[in-house]
Amino acid sequence: MDSTYPSFEHRLKDNAGKIEALLNRLLADASLDDEIVRPARLLSAMRHGVLNGGKRLRPFLVLESAALLGGDADAALRIAAALECVHCYSLVHDDLPAMDDDNLRRGQPTVHIAYDYATAILAGDSLLTYAFDIIAAPETQLPADRKMALVLALSRAAGIGGMAGGQALDLAAEKETPDESGITTLQAMKTGALIRFACEAGAIIAGASDEDRKRLRLFGEKTGLAFQLADDLLDLTADAATMGKATGKDAARGKGTLVGLHGQEWAEATVSRLVTEAGDLLSGYGDKANILIETARFVANRRN
Amino acid sequence: MDSTYPSFEHRLKDNAGKIEALLNRLLADASLDDEIVRPARLLSAMRHGVLNGGKRLRPFLVLESAALLGGDADAALRIAAALECVHCYSLVHDDLPAMDDDNLRRGQPTVHIAYDYATAILAGDSLLTYAFDIIAAPETQLPADRKMALVLALSRAAGIGGMAGGQALDLAAEKETPDESGITTLQAMKTGALIRFACEAGAIIAGASDEDRKRLRLFGEKTGLAFQLADDLLDLTADAATMGKATGKDAARGKGTLVGLHGQEWAEATVSRLVTEAGDLLSGYGDKANILIETARFVANRRN
Repeated sequence: MDSTYPSFEHRLKDNAGKIEALLNRLLADASLDDEIVRPARLLSAMRHGVLNGGKRLRPFLVLESAALLGGDADAALRIAAALECVHCYSLVHDDLPAMDDDNLRRGQPTVHIAYDYATAILAGDSLLTYAFDIIAAPETQLPADRKMALVLALSRAAGIGGMAGGQALDLAAEKETPDESGITTLQAMKTGALIRFACEAGAIIAGASDEDRKRLRLFGEKTGLAFQLADDLLDLTADAATMGKATGKDAARGKGTLVGLHGQEWAEATVSRLVTEAGDLLSGYGDKANILIETARFVANRRN
Repeated sequence: MDSTYPSFEHRLKDNAGKIEALLNRLLADASLDDEIVRPARLLSAMRHGVLNGGKRLRPFLVLESAALLGGDADAALRIAAALECVHCYSLVHDDLPAMDDDNLRRGQPTVHIAYDYATAILAGDSLLTYAFDIIAAPETQLPADRKMALVLALSRAAGIGGMAGGQALDLAAEKETPDESGITTLQAMKTGALIRFACEAGAIIAGASDEDRKRLRLFGEKTGLAFQLADDLLDLTADAATMGKATGKDAARGKGTLVGLHGQEWAEATVSRLVTEAGDLLSGYGDKANILIETARFVANRRN
């Protein structure tokens, strides 16, 4: 599937490089302001949590959504970096022993392993806080009302009604398996909210109409659902490959996911449907929208 | 000393009641938006961390600074509530076992004791995030450029260059005692930054001149320094009372504080000087500034 989108893959990598470079600069040792002291160890932990060579999918969606609607590319890059700080803060905190207790991420020790538990908590806190700094800073050249809309949408996507709330539901789900509606809500909050924000952000940056904004938001919602289902399918395939078990039994094992409830076939069909629906939403934009549509496809078919 | 300021104390309590009521409403079970789900246990943990009957000193400074410069009282109340969410998030995270490991706060179990470790992390994260939601929300009726200035100033006060960075320095200070300049930086960041923001926020809310804003910011800085010295003095007195030790020996024990370095007498003189300087900064505003000046005095002379 990968080779079907050579230009897409190139663009994804190219944008990831730009985001990485900006994040590297924003989190550089040299303070942006002589008055501001940034404790070295904490800054280093933040860098460890952020500069990890991720795919930068969420930033990519910000950049391409903004490009579709004519948003300023430099501003979009900064908003994309802010969003990535929020995503990475959530990974740093989710990896903590009290949460998912992961020692490795992308083959590297997680922040609380490479540093210590307290530093990991503070690095996550500081990354989350810094995201809002990046948006509000004068270097982000956008009208104040658009910045405000971005702060509001991001805080809702990331907070108790979004990602953080989704993580709380996910922890609760380990004790009591949620029903279908519970799973859907959990996933829409935990992973869906930031992906939806990424697409909506492009429209906000561009100062697009409410209609465009809603359309991009819905595109992000469907892409987020496809992302999560693809994730659950990947888990299943990985388990099947590793354990040498039949996929049918594996599906039964996958409690707490829609794949577990409805099976692999249903999930694959649903992913296809979501990608088609996401693409249809953008049909009015013509060829310009191809890259976003390919992103939805990529998300749905990714192998890692 | 308490009885010297009856009207001040009354006003402090009155404003604390208003803040408590607003926070209670903002963190009510009923969602503000039907689309937004707020997981009950996480919301309850956030309430536990916030609705604890604190003095609400930082919100008070926001309200009174805004009042001094003619800022809208309703908007100021919402910004004050946002700031209190940030302050309370920091307490929830600082109390965690990996940080200061406190089981009690204001006689109540801390959030990770009353709930669990993961929920306390997420409650802190969600409170921090929610602060920016409150500022950006349409219910906060301020021009977008003022909201933006508030987001920027708050994120800098709370982040790696402010409170979170100060907490990182504080944890490091347990292993290696900082020198005088290190202690000053640590305290200015850990406790000073939010107090300074509180005063500056009032000026931003009021759309005050740069000069007024700088003056309020400096007033907040001096008040913050007095606050911290008073805190260190309180520790000293409490220890002396509890342990029955002479205060002279106690001062020697107080490593990592300016009181420890320079002694009680110096600290008391410095607190007095800071309060006078803070008051002088506001002399041009006449009687209107009395309440803020009394706040600086209250902070410097508080007994808990």
